Amino acid sequence: MAKNKARTSSPRQESKKTMVNLKFDEMPAQWYNILPDLPEPLPPPRDPEGGPSRVQNLPNLMIGECLQQEFSTERWIDIPGGIMDLYVKAGRPRPLFRATNLEKRLDTPARLYYKSEFFSPTGSHKVNTALAQCWYAKQQGFARVTTETGAGQWGTALSYAAAVTGLKCTVFWVRSVYNWKKDRLSFMKLLGAEVYASPSPMTEVGKALYDKNPEHVGSLGIAISEGLEDSQKDPKATYCLGSVLNHVLMHQTIIGQETQKQFELFDDYPDIVISCLGGGSNFGGFALPFVGDVLKKGKKIKFIAAQSKVAPNLQGKYEYDFADYAEITPMLMMYTLGHKVDMEPIKADGLRYHGCSPIISLLRNKGYIDTVAYPGDEKYVFETAKLFMETEGWLPAPESAYSVCAAIEEAIKCKELGEKKTIAFNVSGHGFLDIHGYRSVLGLE
Amino acid sequence: MAKNKARTSSPRQESKKTMVNLKFDEMPAQWYNILPDLPEPLPPPRDPEGGPSRVQNLPNLMIGECLQQEFSTERWIDIPGGIMDLYVKAGRPRPLFRATNLEKRLDTPARLYYKSEFFSPTGSHKVNTALAQCWYAKQQGFARVTTETGAGQWGTALSYAAAVTGLKCTVFWVRSVYNWKKDRLSFMKLLGAEVYASPSPMTEVGKALYDKNPEHVGSLGIAISEGLEDSQKDPKATYCLGSVLNHVLMHQTIIGQETQKQFELFDDYPDIVISCLGGGSNFGGFALPFVGDVLKKGKKIKFIAAQSKVAPNLQGKYEYDFADYAEITPMLMMYTLGHKVDMEPIKADGLRYHGCSPIISLLRNKGYIDTVAYPGDEKYVFETAKLFMETEGWLPAPESAYSVCAAIEEAIKCKELGEKKTIAFNVSGHGFLDIHGYRSVLGLE
Repeated sequence: MAKNKARTSSPRQESKKTMVNLKFDEMPAQWYNILPDLPEPLPPPRDPEGGPSRVQNLPNLMIGECLQQEFSTERWIDIPGGIMDLYVKAGRPRPLFRATNLEKRLDTPARLYYKSEFFSPTGSHKVNTALAQCWYAKQQGFARVTTETGAGQWGTALSYAAAVTGLKCTVFWVRSVYNWKKDRLSFMKLLGAEVYASPSPMTEVGKALYDKNPEHVGSLGIAISEGLEDSQKDPKATYCLGSVLNHVLMHQTIIGQETQKQFELFDDYPDIVISCLGGGSNFGGFALPFVGDVLKKGKKIKFIAAQSKVAPNLQGKYEYDFADYAEITPMLMMYTLGHKVDMEPIKADGLRYHGCSPIISLLRNKGYIDTVAYPGDEKYVFETAKLFMETEGWLPAPESAYSVCAAIEEAIKCKELGEKKTIAFNVSGHGFLDIHGYRSVLGLE
Repeated sequence: MAKNKARTSSPRQESKKTMVNLKFDEMPAQWYNILPDLPEPLPPPRDPEGGPSRVQNLPNLMIGECLQQEFSTERWIDIPGGIMDLYVKAGRPRPLFRATNLEKRLDTPARLYYKSEFFSPTGSHKVNTALAQCWYAKQQGFARVTTETGAGQWGTALSYAAAVTGLKCTVFWVRSVYNWKKDRLSFMKLLGAEVYASPSPMTEVGKALYDKNPEHVGSLGIAISEGLEDSQKDPKATYCLGSVLNHVLMHQTIIGQETQKQFELFDDYPDIVISCLGGGSNFGGFALPFVGDVLKKGKKIKFIAAQSKVAPNLQGKYEYDFADYAEITPMLMMYTLGHKVDMEPIKADGLRYHGCSPIISLLRNKGYIDTVAYPGDEKYVFETAKLFMETEGWLPAPESAYSVCAAIEEAIKCKELGEKKTIAFNVSGHGFLDIHGYRSVLGLE
């Protein structure tokens, strides 16, 4: 009945041009620590003039291995096998796509490539450092991790990482966001995390505020204080931070290193490297390995950090400032809008941070990083990013839409100038848990 | 300053045991058509005793190439290069994971493997046939596709496929679901689709009902009628269906074929193959290539279809019945609960269908397919599936939770009996757009 046609396996070779991934044994096995390659030494954290020493207190706040990495001068730091296992479980390596449909729609001579960090159990790149931190915490004998979260991406990523490494996780979540992000809250709970609206009655700093007003909307600064206090009162608990710090950016360099190898398979190399930037962890993770190529190999690349006009921290002052509102952290040398600044709410809440990580800040100060900031109503950004959704079909996180928008702008410039540039951008997360943001801004009711 | 440690690339080989993926040129390049291999010929579609001929009208309803495939006796049907490109764009090949953490938690001697169909632009396996149908529709000169959707997964997948192939898409969505799944609605609109609550004033059949009651809750039968009418009135439009039919299951066999090759890389082979089953498209796509191994190569595999007790269609009667409530389709020989049956609402709405695809039904009738049905309150299913979330970290779609639950049950049986069986299950979609279902059933407020 059936004709005897043989089973074959030979997809068109053209398809290869739209996506590449790495084989397992091609995965980067080390993180890239840019500290020894920076054009000048990174200014160290510093204490403010008054008050207790925040710097001396760091060993009480941070996982030991992470503190070591924070100041390491080793260029390549081995990714422990256990963390590599976790990366694989979390869907690494993640494909690099060529945006062929988008190129056609824009009618641009540019070649556009995007990294798919949205292929993530929690929807974003945050798992890359969450997994590393939880694994080290477990090695050090901790049974629980604590943290704060604002938009919720970091809290979700740490909940996930704690679950798969067998740790308990406690998240203090700014109440104004906790109250309405029901899906993200349920997701954290599905992963087994304990989640408290902050300020909460669970800590002294929280209770003082909570008792006065149980509906206190909270702030990231208060939530950080609660997470820190909670971990410091429990010898089996440690605190984790999801951005800004050197070791966090280093854990994220798995993104850019994979992308470098994938570009080799595409037989191409970027002229422009783009990502969105809030505190700097996804931008750093994607861009720093390429910055290394510029610093060490003389490559020429234009780096663009896509920001919001409500938090254009790279256009702020380059000076020592606290990383948090409550002044618990040491002061860091960074581009900052001031740690007490008011910022209007936006849907891309992950970009709403007053300062930029010290590493990116130094590179910006030395002229290696360009920046663009989009209007706070987000209409232009989301409408531009919609071109990507309509042609490539993936739904970026609101934050990642800034990355997409900047890439499209550069592709249009290439068309105007007739330049065949290669543009790489990172889609750091998916928007499945944040569709309401697009709905309200674009009027999709 | 930096020590001269070399950059290396050698992840631990143990990691390989937790995930495998295929290289691009190892991807299956043909769909598997099981029709010629079935133990007896599949009973053809049939007309009811009265009324116009539905069978003769099929060429007016269906894409030409899909109609040919529906009755093809070719065992291997080449996947056109254009569709292969689209599969790659949609994240294929998709990894096969070993659930090592879950195995440990269950303390089972069984080896558990899951296929990651959740790595999908719209969150489910539905894109595998949506892309094929849209590509063929475009080849045939159509400019628009129409369809109905209930839970919304199929409408989203077709919206996506239409967008990336450059077609317009019109979705008629059962109003009772349309009214509250705001995120899914916005997602379809972001992809450029026109979406109408059904019954709508856009068609004659819809308008008659809509004029009487603009808040009519609708039904899948009415929505199908609207989609068909809309396509038949426009020569540039054609209608697409997302499950039940032979060609739909065939397009989905890319899932099981990839899985077969990935098992070779794991140097293992399943004793038990599990997936959830509503109309049969994900179950068929995952299981049929393995059924082929049983029929042609004498392999022994236990197949389990995980269902809901509100729609245990495989426990219904094996007889000719309509595929739709409104009796527009031909009658199909299948296990059915009756096309007018009332089914209680559940969160795993995609499993709520009265009949099972003719191919799976015949295999069930011949004793090749086992089935299990879980209570309609879904507490047991979701609580069991939560073990998977807590250990493996991925959030399955509510429908896929049934697949996970059945796999965990089999792993527990293996522990009780001391059997080292290999269990393969398909996680057909992610739950990011359906977290409310888990929240309400598990009380995660």
